[in-house]
Amino acid sequence: MVKVGVIGATGYVGTELIRLLMKHKNVQIEAISSRTYDGQNYDDIYENYRDVFKLKCKDMDIAEMAEKVDLIFLALPHGIASKQLDKKILEKVKIIDMGADYRLSDVDNYEKWYATDHGSKDILKEAVYGLPELYREDIKKARIVANPGCYPTSSILSIYPLIREGIIDENSLIIDAKSGITGAGRSVNLATHFTESNESFKAYGIASHRHTPEIEEQLSKFSDKEIVLNFTPHLVPMNRGILTTSYAKMKVEKTYKEIKDIYDKYYGDEFFVRMTKENIFPETKWVKGSNFCDIGIKIDQRTNRIIVIGAIDNMIKGSAGQALQNMNIIFGFDEKEGIDDISIFPI
Amino acid sequence: MVKVGVIGATGYVGTELIRLLMKHKNVQIEAISSRTYDGQNYDDIYENYRDVFKLKCKDMDIAEMAEKVDLIFLALPHGIASKQLDKKILEKVKIIDMGADYRLSDVDNYEKWYATDHGSKDILKEAVYGLPELYREDIKKARIVANPGCYPTSSILSIYPLIREGIIDENSLIIDAKSGITGAGRSVNLATHFTESNESFKAYGIASHRHTPEIEEQLSKFSDKEIVLNFTPHLVPMNRGILTTSYAKMKVEKTYKEIKDIYDKYYGDEFFVRMTKENIFPETKWVKGSNFCDIGIKIDQRTNRIIVIGAIDNMIKGSAGQALQNMNIIFGFDEKEGIDDISIFPI
Amino acid sequence: MVKVGVIGATGYVGTELIRLLMKHKNVQIEAISSRTYDGQNYDDIYENYRDVFKLKCKDMDIAEMAEKVDLIFLALPHGIASKQLDKKILEKVKIIDMGADYRLSDVDNYEKWYATDHGSKDILKEAVYGLPELYREDIKKARIVANPGCYPTSSILSIYPLIREGIIDENSLIIDAKSGITGAGRSVNLATHFTESNESFKAYGIASHRHTPEIEEQLSKFSDKEIVLNFTPHLVPMNRGILTTSYAKMKVEKTYKEIKDIYDKYYGDEFFVRMTKENIFPETKWVKGSNFCDIGIKIDQRTNRIIVIGAIDNMIKGSAGQALQNMNIIFGFDEKEGIDDISIFPI
Amino acid sequence: MVKVGVIGATGYVGTELIRLLMKHKNVQIEAISSRTYDGQNYDDIYENYRDVFKLKCKDMDIAEMAEKVDLIFLALPHGIASKQLDKKILEKVKIIDMGADYRLSDVDNYEKWYATDHGSKDILKEAVYGLPELYREDIKKARIVANPGCYPTSSILSIYPLIREGIIDENSLIIDAKSGITGAGRSVNLATHFTESNESFKAYGIASHRHTPEIEEQLSKFSDKEIVLNFTPHLVPMNRGILTTSYAKMKVEKTYKEIKDIYDKYYGDEFFVRMTKENIFPETKWVKGSNFCDIGIKIDQRTNRIIVIGAIDNMIKGSAGQALQNMNIIFGFDEKEGIDDISIFPI
Repeated sequence: MVKVGVIGATGYVGTELIRLLMKHKNVQIEAISSRTYDGQNYDDIYENYRDVFKLKCKDMDIAEMAEKVDLIFLALPHGIASKQLDKKILEKVKIIDMGADYRLSDVDNYEKWYATDHGSKDILKEAVYGLPELYREDIKKARIVANPGCYPTSSILSIYPLIREGIIDENSLIIDAKSGITGAGRSVNLATHFTESNESFKAYGIASHRHTPEIEEQLSKFSDKEIVLNFTPHLVPMNRGILTTSYAKMKVEKTYKEIKDIYDKYYGDEFFVRMTKENIFPETKWVKGSNFCDIGIKIDQRTNRIIVIGAIDNMIKGSAGQALQNMNIIFGFDEKEGIDDISIFPI
Repeated sequence: MVKVGVIGATGYVGTELIRLLMKHKNVQIEAISSRTYDGQNYDDIYENYRDVFKLKCKDMDIAEMAEKVDLIFLALPHGIASKQLDKKILEKVKIIDMGADYRLSDVDNYEKWYATDHGSKDILKEAVYGLPELYREDIKKARIVANPGCYPTSSILSIYPLIREGIIDENSLIIDAKSGITGAGRSVNLATHFTESNESFKAYGIASHRHTPEIEEQLSKFSDKEIVLNFTPHLVPMNRGILTTSYAKMKVEKTYKEIKDIYDKYYGDEFFVRMTKENIFPETKWVKGSNFCDIGIKIDQRTNRIIVIGAIDNMIKGSAGQALQNMNIIFGFDEKEGIDDISIFPI
Repeated sequence: MVKVGVIGATGYVGTELIRLLMKHKNVQIEAISSRTYDGQNYDDIYENYRDVFKLKCKDMDIAEMAEKVDLIFLALPHGIASKQLDKKILEKVKIIDMGADYRLSDVDNYEKWYATDHGSKDILKEAVYGLPELYREDIKKARIVANPGCYPTSSILSIYPLIREGIIDENSLIIDAKSGITGAGRSVNLATHFTESNESFKAYGIASHRHTPEIEEQLSKFSDKEIVLNFTPHLVPMNRGILTTSYAKMKVEKTYKEIKDIYDKYYGDEFFVRMTKENIFPETKWVKGSNFCDIGIKIDQRTNRIIVIGAIDNMIKGSAGQALQNMNIIFGFDEKEGIDDISIFPI
Repeated sequence: MVKVGVIGATGYVGTELIRLLMKHKNVQIEAISSRTYDGQNYDDIYENYRDVFKLKCKDMDIAEMAEKVDLIFLALPHGIASKQLDKKILEKVKIIDMGADYRLSDVDNYEKWYATDHGSKDILKEAVYGLPELYREDIKKARIVANPGCYPTSSILSIYPLIREGIIDENSLIIDAKSGITGAGRSVNLATHFTESNESFKAYGIASHRHTPEIEEQLSKFSDKEIVLNFTPHLVPMNRGILTTSYAKMKVEKTYKEIKDIYDKYYGDEFFVRMTKENIFPETKWVKGSNFCDIGIKIDQRTNRIIVIGAIDNMIKGSAGQALQNMNIIFGFDEKEGIDDISIFPI
């Protein structure tokens, strides 16, 4: 049994992670850390764990937890992990960071978009971007994995084959994204007060959301041009799910069938990426509660644009599930272990 | 008192219209027609009208109703109005058609996108597109007004000043639209079954929605180029509201202030179009239940695109409210009469 | 024009009140007070008021506002009004208190259930309970009206005729109540965070909710027995609406028709109380956005119980609308002025 | 591997069952039957099964399926199973009926409440009511199990210890129940159209719901009196979950601690029944997606009533999960196999 710990165990990402880890047959949750709930029983915080999960939260930093476990999941606000982590810790323990500190390999970009210093630039160099469908081989050898943001997971998986194959005009990309409200986390504020967000729809972070440089950097790695794009997130009055609608001009003429074959080339063997049938498009309900990313494509001949719809569960493929997938790869477990549930429907 | 009638009185558009007409001080609802509910009390169909609205539905065609009233509102599926209407009727009565039959002035376009013959091409020629902010003077003199579609109302109002002033590249336009489920009407089907649409988000009508040619035709009228664009509607799990996120490349360099001035030039005197302050963007909750269209703009210097957010209540400014606005213009009433309520919040 | 002021203008009750007052033809809103938003434009706080309501908030206490207006609406947490009000103020201005301080005429009961001292027991004696259907004549002459709680409005109106006529066993009453989340107000907390309350249902305040003694006291006034009952509120994942399901043993044998006649005796002339037809029952959607209270009754011969369903909009008949109704009575306006809208449906 | 079949595989209960059966390590789904979708791939009907479940639907009756499998789950409207089943089939195959035909042991009661003849009264005699916490030993030996209704599961588990121990007045019972909309199934109709049920709350089946006699019959079996009670279901605008609020007069004086001990006596060893801590009460979100039934109790000394809150997932403990639990008992599997997931939160 691999021993794991979770730091930031009482946020939504943390609790989703614990739920999935409990189902994993090769893993034992050894320690959970929370500053706010230090000393409290986990099932007093989250009643769904009542009688079935008995750990107490304890406030621990990364170094302290590194003495107890084989792998640590970090579910922390940006800026904390990079200041606590150092090379000595990485010699003792594997790290999967679900926060933002190691996602951008360009430090300047990080410091500009996140408006804070990066505390461990040396470690940043070795961090592997944890999108298994793109970086599986690197993840196998990684000591530290930067788990992707929720929006980038759906956005990059949707567009990656088109960029790799030079199908689209790199500077024509527009990603219009929509997320359920779990994406905003558990901290209360007026914008996520029930009666302020229920039965309403809005955009936010227009031309300024921090997932923009993450998507740009990743797609640029597979292009000979530097990609600059528009990314606009919106808030959907529902708990979970991300849907991304991506638009790009086609540089070459292709049929649906040809484009579909390209996606199959990259994702045909990927369990967690599913292509919908022609003229069927992803809906968040079909992936909610699962680690799948569903993708559907449409070519609009009138405008010569391709439209790609991607859908994920923001808490699973967009966060905790992908973290488990990365753990499975690191330890050589079956990549699906613990995360092979399909969506519960209707839920 | 102007006598009005409603044909298609028991759908969602019909019932919203009756609610607004009841509040109008210069109007008397003389007759309401419904095929399905012929002979039934209106307040047995919609319990919110209990004890306060006493008319019975009667199945009547347009010609029959034209004998009784000064103006008829049509809330019918496409293809019916164009077959019932003729010039003789128009000599007796004003028509505001909330359906699609007279929205496209290009008959071929209509017949292609709606896959049906147009039954009264002669009348189509004189129909005025009922977007008061663009066509107020024509509406004053019109015998027949084609009330715009819900998505076109928000889309066109959002983009119109940019096209008029030649600010944007005409072929770079992408409109990513999101609507509450009232847009789908009252007819039951699996897609709008509560448990199939609640807590999920999806696109539909991708590259094929019938509001596309309507938006293109209207914007093209104010451009020297023929505009072809991408329009993608999505379904939001909420009752009401449309938000459109529009993207276009800027042809000229402009500051936020300069663009804002352009919008003010066109909408500064318009009661029902409101510009949000800089970096504040429309949310559907602020217009729900009202006839307002809120618009917010953002210039993204990184991509040289302008992003315009528009929000309306799809049942009011997107349908019944705009119909009343048109009626007010036709009869010379105060344009706000009956439709000056602000949004109820939170509702 | 009557000049009115609102203290506590930026909570949900305050903003609903301002919306309704704006529609009232005999009233001018002279001043609005808010501690939190002192000095801010109201339409910067609530964007639905953008461009149509131009007042600024100013932090004022009751005495200060009493110099400026004819009537003050108080929308304050309990315990504040009773400490600020005094007889001198009442000589200058009418008060409609939408808080709890003057609802219970039994001071001991108030101090026990609200766990605070009452600051103006002398004024409490003259306060009139503002349920117009029961106390219209007293309200006409009142200087201070205690606007009822949301749950009591639906509960008392549902049960009152049965108590008045001695139909039910006074100690068999159980009121199982359900409310939308606006009832919890605008202050953020974990329980009303979107993702904590959406798609879930729970009871709260079981056997301890402060509206219990209010219902008991009012019903007891019309009975020769002191009524002690069970009242259980529940939270429904929706914005607005209260539905109360009340159960009581029948002391006498009555048919549906006979019971219906009793309700008609009390409510037949009441515009805002509507009886549903037999075997049709209230739903919150039919009253949402309106000042109506819909009531439906069912006699269960198997158990000899009567079940009464009541539905109101908690923000309107349950709060701001009823406050306007009381104002209309006090000043001799048409009782429906400003509050005669029917429900918008679907919204 | 035990071979199982599902008849009625494409309704909500059917699809939930298949999802759970796929996770079960001792079971193979051999055949799935659907009349409506005969010949179609299951993952073309439910996209969440895309690529991971490859069976086709085939229209089969019970006798035909009995040739292929060891156990059949029936998910059919009432009246069908009782007409298709006979003793010969029961010699070949075990049956778990998730419909209503074998839930009431009193045939007259069945025929009265369901307004249809019962087609196999001989089989009804041997059917075991499939509530494992009450009838585990009988289920072990059963050839046919009548899986309880969703409301009865929560209602009976909530009240059973109080009846067994003679704590409450048998004729004082009132069960006020609330359900998410999956309870209404997948057939479209106006009442469950999104915009008709969203953001509204209502009661239905008042004093006439068919789960009433089921609850009465079961509770009466453990009492020396025949229990007649009020049961009122309500529809909550959410997908899943049932919460029952039960009220009864106490015949004897007991403290919370004493009552809690009684519940622990019956449920202390039951994995799927969880008691909340004192003054913590069940919420549907904590059981949604799980097979748990959470129960919380409150004694109101003012009224001498006990209030019991029960919560289940109507599709799992209220239907498909309980069916699997029964299957596990019949075949001697670990009772938790396939159904030990905790609630996903927030979802």
